[in-house]
Amino acid sequence: MPGTAGRVIKCRAAVAWEAGKPLVIEEVEVAPPQANEVRLKILFTALCHTDVYFWEAKGQTPLFPRIFGHEAGGIVESVGEGVTELQPGDHVLPVFTGECKECRHCKSEESNMCDLLRINTDRGVMINDGKTRFSKNGQPIYHFVGTSTFSEYTVVHAGCVAKINPKAPLDKVCILSCGICTGLGATINVAKPKKDSSIAIFGLGAVGLAAAEGARISGAARIIGVDLNPSRFEEAKKFGVNEFVNPNDYDKPVQEVIAEMTNGGVDRSVECTGSIQAMISAFECVHDGWGVAVLVGVPNKDDAFKTHPVNFLNEKTLKGTFYGNYKPRTDIPGVVEKYMNKELELEKFITHSVPFSEINKAFEYMLQGKSIRCIIRMED
Amino acid sequence: MPGTAGRVIKCRAAVAWEAGKPLVIEEVEVAPPQANEVRLKILFTALCHTDVYFWEAKGQTPLFPRIFGHEAGGIVESVGEGVTELQPGDHVLPVFTGECKECRHCKSEESNMCDLLRINTDRGVMINDGKTRFSKNGQPIYHFVGTSTFSEYTVVHAGCVAKINPKAPLDKVCILSCGICTGLGATINVAKPKKDSSIAIFGLGAVGLAAAEGARISGAARIIGVDLNPSRFEEAKKFGVNEFVNPNDYDKPVQEVIAEMTNGGVDRSVECTGSIQAMISAFECVHDGWGVAVLVGVPNKDDAFKTHPVNFLNEKTLKGTFYGNYKPRTDIPGVVEKYMNKELELEKFITHSVPFSEINKAFEYMLQGKSIRCIIRMED
Repeated sequence: MPGTAGRVIKCRAAVAWEAGKPLVIEEVEVAPPQANEVRLKILFTALCHTDVYFWEAKGQTPLFPRIFGHEAGGIVESVGEGVTELQPGDHVLPVFTGECKECRHCKSEESNMCDLLRINTDRGVMINDGKTRFSKNGQPIYHFVGTSTFSEYTVVHAGCVAKINPKAPLDKVCILSCGICTGLGATINVAKPKKDSSIAIFGLGAVGLAAAEGARISGAARIIGVDLNPSRFEEAKKFGVNEFVNPNDYDKPVQEVIAEMTNGGVDRSVECTGSIQAMISAFECVHDGWGVAVLVGVPNKDDAFKTHPVNFLNEKTLKGTFYGNYKPRTDIPGVVEKYMNKELELEKFITHSVPFSEINKAFEYMLQGKSIRCIIRMED
Repeated sequence: MPGTAGRVIKCRAAVAWEAGKPLVIEEVEVAPPQANEVRLKILFTALCHTDVYFWEAKGQTPLFPRIFGHEAGGIVESVGEGVTELQPGDHVLPVFTGECKECRHCKSEESNMCDLLRINTDRGVMINDGKTRFSKNGQPIYHFVGTSTFSEYTVVHAGCVAKINPKAPLDKVCILSCGICTGLGATINVAKPKKDSSIAIFGLGAVGLAAAEGARISGAARIIGVDLNPSRFEEAKKFGVNEFVNPNDYDKPVQEVIAEMTNGGVDRSVECTGSIQAMISAFECVHDGWGVAVLVGVPNKDDAFKTHPVNFLNEKTLKGTFYGNYKPRTDIPGVVEKYMNKELELEKFITHSVPFSEINKAFEYMLQGKSIRCIIRMED
């Protein structure tokens, strides 16, 4: 690797040239990292709904050509000026949001919403110089959320890189870069269910299943999965979900169904769908006096959350979370350790695996609702 | 006092015969306490907005004749069967909501919303037998929130009585029965501002000033009072309020004004008006990443709280509280001690004092907005 430091690397990347069109594996040029940046060799990446959402570019300003990808594991190839906490050979997870360790958010124990490196889905360039590090025949190719892991090499701000245990298998822990930590942290860090308590999880996709995994780890006794698709329940049992509610099976609001099942409401709830109606139900289904509801799913731009304020006066709490309240550099190495010591199970999230050359299959699996996570093997 | 135990006591009470009409001091009969009840000799009582609200009977089913009053200090005269934690001579504060110590709420560390003795403003009778303990010439006179302290003697469920330090001056600590603890606890127990933090208090009436007092005790550096009445600011300074915002002075929403004053939002806010618009502003004015808003004020029946859910996803928290999350029997004796050791200042809340015979003056002071708290001296 030392031979490549400071030079442009030519490598394969899966380029999205147009919204919704299959990615094309191209040879691209990856510039060396600038100040406070690192260049990573990506070994494994996974596909997340957010990639698909911005690839489809419905509802946002399209930005193409672009290299997507933000769940990944890799090794530091070289570091830019001023990077002191990382060095070539470190095993890392790039993360779509960062931790500068200097701003008010990073200095607050309560926040992970770094002022400098907070996710920005509209930006396709590096913050250092406002330019891309990717190009093909001189044409710039845009970055995605500062990670662009659908490339054998990528350049990332050093504040968006979690240095992890080099013994951790990157083909497993790569999924901690986004969705799994989002759901897991929503439960463990924010909802904080007590042992033997009850919790409702709205939406049994990857994030909701990770929220359930957090509830299982926390020792919750009743983990109630709520989903419009009853086929999800069987899979969800592996993640600790032990009761299932399909809102379509009832004539009354699902919050009333859950209140009746639980003698007044669940102790905690976590909303992982982004549907505004599910958000309201998730809040209203928690018990008065102590119930806490946590919003995770991203709503539509024009949605309004609406409830009677007496629900709050009856001592229900409503919180939201971003990336499960984990600070990427400070906290993610510890989540990797939870996997290493077998407290956290990751294998069950990984339903598919494809070589890099077949990356478009990962999109098909997700669009067909077949996969929880599909690993893309960069070296195959 | 032993001479009266087990017998009907004849004494003076201020009876509300009709909605909105001046109270009339009458000689009433007060029956002995039944099982799990105690009869109290009231020495001092104060007037709270909730008394006035139900006396005016606008918007609720009227229940008359009734004896109002729920902020008071007194001495146990006699106890009913099964009462073991109180005995004649104990100094006590009756509270409008109770603590049975047996239900799920009482057993939860997080809740004070006792299933058995939670406030019920519609009920005018004792829960034991569904009857009143007050009468005049055989006509029952209804109770109010289980306390009815505008009477020289009253009967209260033992679960609604806090036994306090007998050295505490009842003419001061009587105001801890309701409004002051509601505001104080909203800040200290629920918003929990850190030392040197910022907090906005919406509404500078008695509850809001008590919330400010909680912020002062917590060591908050910036205590921003928000009120439509600028004359409140001068008084509020005594309670630690050191900045003032009148929403009428601005063309933009007050949450934007506060965000600009505080580089993105206050760390905490407490809403003490009950106005739905103030509730929304109080939530939206807290800082993303760590802001916590606490609702205290009671809204109208048909109000809807409405906000964009992204405010939650940006890690703002919305909570509500009832009686400042204090458990009446467990926690109120400790609040009295805070006053005794001079941590909590109560004198500044007490702006007026009248003899029992002039109780209607207390109503006038409150309706004119002159008083924070007016003490009614039962023995004068």
